Amino acid sequence: MADFPKSIVIKEEGPREGFQIEPGPIPAGRKIELIDALSETGVRHMQIVSFVNPKRVPGMADAEEVVRGFAPKPGVEYTGLWLNEKGLERARATGKLTLEGKISLYPSEQFLLRNNNRTLAQQVEYVHRALDEYKQQGIPVRRGSISNAFGCNFEGDIPVPRVVAMVGEMYDIAGEHGLDITELTLADTMAWATPLHIKRMIGAIRGKYPEIRINLHLHDTRGMGIANAYAGLELGVVLFDACVGGLGGCPFAGHKGAAGNVCTEDLVFLCDELGIETGIDLEKMIGCARLAEDIVGHPLPGSVMKGGSLERLREASRRAR
Amino acid sequence: MADFPKSIVIKEEGPREGFQIEPGPIPAGRKIELIDALSETGVRHMQIVSFVNPKRVPGMADAEEVVRGFAPKPGVEYTGLWLNEKGLERARATGKLTLEGKISLYPSEQFLLRNNNRTLAQQVEYVHRALDEYKQQGIPVRRGSISNAFGCNFEGDIPVPRVVAMVGEMYDIAGEHGLDITELTLADTMAWATPLHIKRMIGAIRGKYPEIRINLHLHDTRGMGIANAYAGLELGVVLFDACVGGLGGCPFAGHKGAAGNVCTEDLVFLCDELGIETGIDLEKMIGCARLAEDIVGHPLPGSVMKGGSLERLREASRRAR
Repeated sequence: MADFPKSIVIKEEGPREGFQIEPGPIPAGRKIELIDALSETGVRHMQIVSFVNPKRVPGMADAEEVVRGFAPKPGVEYTGLWLNEKGLERARATGKLTLEGKISLYPSEQFLLRNNNRTLAQQVEYVHRALDEYKQQGIPVRRGSISNAFGCNFEGDIPVPRVVAMVGEMYDIAGEHGLDITELTLADTMAWATPLHIKRMIGAIRGKYPEIRINLHLHDTRGMGIANAYAGLELGVVLFDACVGGLGGCPFAGHKGAAGNVCTEDLVFLCDELGIETGIDLEKMIGCARLAEDIVGHPLPGSVMKGGSLERLREASRRAR
Repeated sequence: MADFPKSIVIKEEGPREGFQIEPGPIPAGRKIELIDALSETGVRHMQIVSFVNPKRVPGMADAEEVVRGFAPKPGVEYTGLWLNEKGLERARATGKLTLEGKISLYPSEQFLLRNNNRTLAQQVEYVHRALDEYKQQGIPVRRGSISNAFGCNFEGDIPVPRVVAMVGEMYDIAGEHGLDITELTLADTMAWATPLHIKRMIGAIRGKYPEIRINLHLHDTRGMGIANAYAGLELGVVLFDACVGGLGGCPFAGHKGAAGNVCTEDLVFLCDELGIETGIDLEKMIGCARLAEDIVGHPLPGSVMKGGSLERLREASRRAR
C-alpha cells in the first residue's frame, strides 16, 4: 500500500524559520537556549540562523551572536542560510557552521524578485558565481533546491513540467561545474501543495531522474503540511525539513497568514506511530516546542505539543489493567 | 493512485462539538447566529446541539432555546445528538430537527462509562430499547457508529479485528430489529489514528462488509485530521463529519488538550484542490470560521481561515499578467 522508508532524516529549521519572522525582539540568549535544547533531542541537522540583510530581516541581525553562543553537540550538523556572497562570507567567518552549497532555482520570478532581489537570469548568473566560489573555498555542493515548486502567491499555479524542466536545468548547471547533485529540495514555500500534487510532482521528477533523493520543505499555511509529508513518506521520501512547534513563515510570501514549516514533533509523532525511525525523542521535542512557545510569547500551531504523545497513554492504560 | 470520489458529503458538527466544550457561557443568540450563517454555506447536514445532562455539559443547557431560534433553510438537515431516552424525547419535542436513530457501540468500556455512564452490556441493552422506541415513533435507523474505533486514552490501542467484530455485532443487532444498516461512522474520538491506520481499518471492514458506506469522524488532537481525511478520500470515502474553524472537543476524553473535529474549511479547501465536490462555498465557510472565532473569543485551530483560499490568489495572479 505504501513504500514507507525504514528511517528518515528530519532537518530542524525552527530557529531559522521562526526567528526570521517573529516580531520580537527576542534576545539572542533565548534563541541559543532553544538551539541548545534542540541539540539534546536526537536531531542531527539543524539550520539555526540566516545571514541576510538585517534591514530586511531584523530578527536575524544577531545571527553572529547566536552562532557564537550556542554549544555544538558532537554528531549534530549546524547550518545557516545565505542568499548571496556576503551572506556566505558571514557564515564562513563564524567558523562554527557546516557550510554546504546548493543550487537554488525559482520557477517564480515574482517571488525571486521579492525574496532575493534578482531576476531569473540574474539568479542563474549568481548560481554560477556561487559555485565557483564554493569550489575555491572547498565547500561541498550536493543539493539542488527549487522554491515555490507547487505554486506561488504572485504567479499562481506552477505546472509540474516546469519544475521537472528546472531540475534538468539544475543538472546542466551542475554538469558545467563538474558537480554531482544527489539531493533535491522541493519547497512548498507558500503552501500550495496537496498530497496528490506532492505525489504527482515526485512521480514526474523520479520518472526522469530516478536516482535523486527528494527533500520536502513543506509550509503549513493551509493545514496540509502533515498530509503532504505523509504523501512523501508513502513514496519513500527520507528527507524532511520541519520546525519545532510549527515555528516560522516566510517574510516575503506576501501573506500575513503565512505559517511555518510542518511541525517537527507532529511529524515525529506520525513517524513513531508508523514505525519509521527519526532518531528524535518525541517527549524531548515536545519540551522544545513548549520552550519555543515560551520564547516567542504566543501559542504555536503544533498539535502534539498540546495533545501529547500516545506512548504515555499506552503505558498508563497498561498499568491500569 | 487513488480512488477519489467525485463528491463527498460533509456533515457540519461545529455548533454541537464546539459549544459543548467551550467554557462560555455563550449566549444562545450567538450560537444561532453561527448556525444561520452555516446554513448559507451550502452545507446540507448540520448537527447543532446535544440533548444531554446540563449538569455534565453546561454549554448545552440551552439546546431547546437554540433550536427554537435558528431559521431552518430548505434543503438543509438539522440534527441533534442524544445518548438516552430523555435526550431523544427532548429532541423530538423541539419539532424542528430531523430525527435519525443509530446503533452506537463502543469498543472501549472505560470511555463508555465516562461518556454514557454505562457498561458495554448496558449499552447493548440500551440500543435494543432505543431501536424499539425508534420503531414505535417511526424514526428511521440506517447508521451504526463506533466511537474510539482507533484507540482510547483509557484503554490504549483498539485492535482492528475488535472493531470489525463490533461491526458484525451491530449487524446482528440490526437484524434482530429487521433494520438495514447502510452507513457506519468510525469515530476517532481521541485522535489515535494515522492515515495508515485509517486505511487498514477501512480495508478490513470492507473486506468483510463491502457494501457499507463509511463515515469518518476525525478529531484533530494530534494534527493528523486532514491527513486521515485524505486517506479516507483516497479510499473513496464520501461521508465526513467536520467542524467549522476546528471547533470542539469531547468533554469526556480525559484530556484538556482534546481538539475538535477536522476543520471544515480545511477539508473543503483540500477537496476543492482535488476537484472533489462538496457543495460548500469555501469563502463563505471561511467567513463562518471567523464568526465562530469571534463567538468563542479565542483563536481556533483552522488553517485556511488564516492562510486563505488559493482561488483568490490564482485570480489575482491572472489579473496581474
